[in-house]
Amino acid sequence: MEDRFIRQMKFIMEIEKLKKITRQSYIYDGSRKENDAEHSYSLALMALVLSEYSNIEVDVLKVVKMVMIHDIVEIDAGDTYAYDEEGNKSKKERENNAAQRIFGILPQDQANDFKCIWEEFEAEETKESKFAAAIDKVHPILLNDITNGRAWKEHDVHKNQIMSRNINTEKGSEQLWEYCKNLIEKNILDGNIKA
Amino acid sequence: MEDRFIRQMKFIMEIEKLKKITRQSYIYDGSRKENDAEHSYSLALMALVLSEYSNIEVDVLKVVKMVMIHDIVEIDAGDTYAYDEEGNKSKKERENNAAQRIFGILPQDQANDFKCIWEEFEAEETKESKFAAAIDKVHPILLNDITNGRAWKEHDVHKNQIMSRNINTEKGSEQLWEYCKNLIEKNILDGNIKA
Repeated sequence: MEDRFIRQMKFIMEIEKLKKITRQSYIYDGSRKENDAEHSYSLALMALVLSEYSNIEVDVLKVVKMVMIHDIVEIDAGDTYAYDEEGNKSKKERENNAAQRIFGILPQDQANDFKCIWEEFEAEETKESKFAAAIDKVHPILLNDITNGRAWKEHDVHKNQIMSRNINTEKGSEQLWEYCKNLIEKNILDGNIKA
Repeated sequence: MEDRFIRQMKFIMEIEKLKKITRQSYIYDGSRKENDAEHSYSLALMALVLSEYSNIEVDVLKVVKMVMIHDIVEIDAGDTYAYDEEGNKSKKERENNAAQRIFGILPQDQANDFKCIWEEFEAEETKESKFAAAIDKVHPILLNDITNGRAWKEHDVHKNQIMSRNINTEKGSEQLWEYCKNLIEKNILDGNIKA
């Protein structure tokens, strides 16, 4: 069988590992934490349903590709919790090495394509990456809200941490950020976020 | 806030429930069964990476949309195991009712769009639905193969059941079906599938 096809199948099976990378957010009923495959699924669904709320019209397939692969590097680098300052210092280097190895499983043309898409996502400079980054930040807020702030409370999260993490969210989607600001205020009132 | 946006957010949160719909396939390391969100994620990834193996060139975004929503009806109708004859008799009606309710959460235009896409997937008449159906059938074979036929053995699955379930797989992708036929033969030799 052709080397190209074998590489592609190997990549597909490698990415299965996302199903065991646990995140800090709980799924909607609070019964367990979410994993990266589930998270990426939710973002892809948001891309399909909510693209009209991107500040600038986007290529939806490109946004889907971005969110589908944006966490693949965590297979090697692990999930660094948004508010873990120590872990976030070494994050960039760990993730670059991971991108090299994991996308490198693919045939050259697809490896380059996915690596470029991932770098574009990380840089947050294009309209697609701004919108993709926005939904990546919004989804954990939705899950936290529906689980009465479970992950926020476990990590004793303060409003200013959420606000600084979401400094660029409105650059992707003013509508989504407006919605999230309301959820954040509600969760401060409910005692789920420290004011 | 606009009714349209509220409906879309309600839909996004409704679809979270896929994360609790358990399938029969085990994830790659055999540690637990896969859920529908994870399954749909894997199919969307396959659509992005393997679309060149569709027998006829496809609109990749359309295939992604199909596989992202193809199991949404299981939120109400449950996952009917491929080789459960009794359950498969009532499956169609249960799933139609589910489609009506769940896609109906969306604004009318998106509800219609998604319902059409889902019906197109189910009918398996267009090139996109043939390819989407093929990867939907292929992925469980990949997971069974990597877990030494765990779900096959649990359900005492025979080769003729797999072959009849995959009667249309080569209509979507000859290449993928060729690959699966080899995996099936290997798993018969290993005693994971009854000959």
